[in-house]
Amino acid sequence: MAKELEFLTKRSEDYSKWYNELVIKADLAEQSDVRGCMVIKPYGYAIWEKMQRTLDDMFKETGVQNAYFPLLIPKSFLSKEAEHVEGFAKECAVVTHYRLKTNDTHDGVVVDPAARLEEELIIRPTSETIIWNTFKNWIHSYRDLPLLVNQWCNVMRWEMRTRLFLRTSEFLWQEGHTAHATREEAEERAQMMLKVYAKFAEECMAVPVIQGVKSETERFAGALDTYTIEAMMQDGKALQSGTSHFLGQNFGKAFEVQFLNKDNQAEYAWATSWGVSTRLMGALIMTHSDDNGLVLPPALAPTQVVIIPIAKPEQLSAINEKAEALMAQLKALGISVKYDNADNKRPGFKFADYELKGIPVRLVLGARDLEKGLVEVMRRDTLEKENMPLEGLAEKVKALLDDIQKNIYEKARKFRDEHIYECDNYEEFKERVKDGGFFLCHWDGTAETEAQIKEETQATIRCVPFGVEQTPGVDMVSGKPAKARVLIARSY
Amino acid sequence: MAKELEFLTKRSEDYSKWYNELVIKADLAEQSDVRGCMVIKPYGYAIWEKMQRTLDDMFKETGVQNAYFPLLIPKSFLSKEAEHVEGFAKECAVVTHYRLKTNDTHDGVVVDPAARLEEELIIRPTSETIIWNTFKNWIHSYRDLPLLVNQWCNVMRWEMRTRLFLRTSEFLWQEGHTAHATREEAEERAQMMLKVYAKFAEECMAVPVIQGVKSETERFAGALDTYTIEAMMQDGKALQSGTSHFLGQNFGKAFEVQFLNKDNQAEYAWATSWGVSTRLMGALIMTHSDDNGLVLPPALAPTQVVIIPIAKPEQLSAINEKAEALMAQLKALGISVKYDNADNKRPGFKFADYELKGIPVRLVLGARDLEKGLVEVMRRDTLEKENMPLEGLAEKVKALLDDIQKNIYEKARKFRDEHIYECDNYEEFKERVKDGGFFLCHWDGTAETEAQIKEETQATIRCVPFGVEQTPGVDMVSGKPAKARVLIARSY
Repeated sequence: MAKELEFLTKRSEDYSKWYNELVIKADLAEQSDVRGCMVIKPYGYAIWEKMQRTLDDMFKETGVQNAYFPLLIPKSFLSKEAEHVEGFAKECAVVTHYRLKTNDTHDGVVVDPAARLEEELIIRPTSETIIWNTFKNWIHSYRDLPLLVNQWCNVMRWEMRTRLFLRTSEFLWQEGHTAHATREEAEERAQMMLKVYAKFAEECMAVPVIQGVKSETERFAGALDTYTIEAMMQDGKALQSGTSHFLGQNFGKAFEVQFLNKDNQAEYAWATSWGVSTRLMGALIMTHSDDNGLVLPPALAPTQVVIIPIAKPEQLSAINEKAEALMAQLKALGISVKYDNADNKRPGFKFADYELKGIPVRLVLGARDLEKGLVEVMRRDTLEKENMPLEGLAEKVKALLDDIQKNIYEKARKFRDEHIYECDNYEEFKERVKDGGFFLCHWDGTAETEAQIKEETQATIRCVPFGVEQTPGVDMVSGKPAKARVLIARSY
Repeated sequence: MAKELEFLTKRSEDYSKWYNELVIKADLAEQSDVRGCMVIKPYGYAIWEKMQRTLDDMFKETGVQNAYFPLLIPKSFLSKEAEHVEGFAKECAVVTHYRLKTNDTHDGVVVDPAARLEEELIIRPTSETIIWNTFKNWIHSYRDLPLLVNQWCNVMRWEMRTRLFLRTSEFLWQEGHTAHATREEAEERAQMMLKVYAKFAEECMAVPVIQGVKSETERFAGALDTYTIEAMMQDGKALQSGTSHFLGQNFGKAFEVQFLNKDNQAEYAWATSWGVSTRLMGALIMTHSDDNGLVLPPALAPTQVVIIPIAKPEQLSAINEKAEALMAQLKALGISVKYDNADNKRPGFKFADYELKGIPVRLVLGARDLEKGLVEVMRRDTLEKENMPLEGLAEKVKALLDDIQKNIYEKARKFRDEHIYECDNYEEFKERVKDGGFFLCHWDGTAETEAQIKEETQATIRCVPFGVEQTPGVDMVSGKPAKARVLIARSY
């Protein structure tokens, strides 16, 4: 789409504005005319598709199968699990009628009052209720377990303040729902899926994450435990990037899902659920991108390499030929590549546009360089340029893509690690948390202290992190004894 | 899931009951507790996923990109295109509120009257309106065209009578939406996508289809032309399996989507839309399956080959070893295979169950046969059994799968062709159409005659077929001159 290339606000000037502009200018998504709902544009959707494909394969490797459950949930289902209804009834889209009719002035349509539903239907904010209502008919014996199901779908939670990808009323996600014969097996599955998410975030998105368990206050409505992966954005704020819930027998009891165990005794099934959403797009963008635009990990870039010729019209056909050969070599190595020899845009415009779009590697075929057998290679992550021989270039580009994938992960990890602080003084915490960062602080385990921290600093307990050597201490707020340090940060 | 295998009603007894039972017993889908909405079970969804993947690749080869647009459409959008609102406003789910609250007796939730939307939102029955409202901002110049977008999503049309896959209130589909600078290019694209659908139906689903154009009465609401592929089910009824619409400038004008042409003059963009849905699952099932259950084309079977051992416990480990080796060979040829050596089900039960599920090829590894180096091979389409040497079996199975794919297509084509009749006498037509079949009859082109046929016979004009040599004649109902024969049939 032909438009003048506009420059981005710098991150250092206004990080939030930079993000909003980048999402729009890189053609990832835009607000629709429907309050809080976004349009995911083709370029943004292509990245999401790559995420989906990778995650879907990872789920299937663990034995999960996809299925599809209804969009609409009867209102009464929500009330069956006491905590769940508290968490989700307050922000949902309610379908009350099933027909429109022509208005009296014959210039529009109005709701037909005769078509009122007996029971209102809710657009799913999450599907535990409708799925466990279905599982009731699928689960009779321990032989039917475990039941490992996932669905890719849209969900809706009515949000007052929305931001593209980070918080929208409608979003796309996957929600996994599993049923098990034992508590241990369900807990193991909930943790297994957290590890799948962490592996995906780190290896595919190149986003380092901290794994941990949520405090009671921050748990999913209806869960006994919520596990989370937390990523640090470049402004030092946390972004919860995926959660996996151990739901105990709450939904088994609410929907009467019982099975006969090996001793022929009836038991309630144990549950997990776990999800990641288009919010991951926000994490991806905010972890790697810079003032020139997107930086994409090669594993998720819809186009990994762009080739741009610089030549006089009479030189172009010779260069086209060399480009075709190079493209064939790159494609043979499984690399996605685009050749842009459009003559209605200047090279400088193209350079800026592909930087904005985050194409990992740019190759410039210049007539003069080519005479010497050389190609200019630029890597998007560092913006470094180097002349390389055309001979054997494809293999070098492949190695470069691997290097970029590793490099942006390492860069993000280093940034994250430099902004994790142990802190034992609440006054100091209150001051420093304004500048972002993750704080490891002793917590007395009470909801009161947690609420006070949130109230006074807008920071929340992100999780009790796994894999951190814990020593008992003193809660920095209450002065009471604390068993462990928790991760506290402001968050998206 | 352990359950006793139940047998199916025979097609000759009650075709409709056979279909309903088959969908349930083969674990494809089931009714949910939400009126008219189905649950697509893992086995059914796995087939749908294979359809999606193949179609998606075919779309992308023609330059189409995926995107995502909002689920909800403001009520006023529907009214902007006069015919469109007539077609879709009468059967839609209406969102009127965005919050529930605890009821007075504190034992449930009710709609919060304070949370009434200013303008009601409709769950998309199709997305022309919201997409063209978005295209307005994407299209400014002829350089922005063509714009070729597709989305995979759920849609909802309130249906009074529903049948699994064939007619459900919520269904899954893809909807392609394209914008073009000229009428010719848009018409060409609408026909191109029809051809993609026909190719997919015939080559992948093994379902022969007749391509044609709908009568004015049967057009999509808002289209200038609707192209269709029509398949014949085993009861002789037609199933409309995919449609592609040339929408003219109707949506361009309704949503003011104008572009500057090469002469710098403003013009309205030309549109197409095209879609196939989970209804294809119904076409697939009803075209090939038999009284033993599903028959799946190998191209869409989630599992193409099942291997079942028949052996005494002490023989099993030797057979397992042979099975592992065979599976590795099959997988190396890209064949999906399952080895079922579960000892809690008898072989006879397994045979019946895999026939019900439509696994294209069954291999039985019997201890005694194996001593002679033989394996029993059964093909699901004809139920023919043959002993084949284990040596070199994988290649033979691959060839057999190709043969099954061709054979079920040919079988369906032969059945279809044998049930296409030219008919010039309305009395004869009325009698014969009760038994099903496609009738090629001269039609005077009037909506009156079309309505009379529908009223008196429940049959409809499916299309004016392409690729049929047409000779003028006399309308069998009105006796008026008729330019061409049209395809008339009862339909799903």
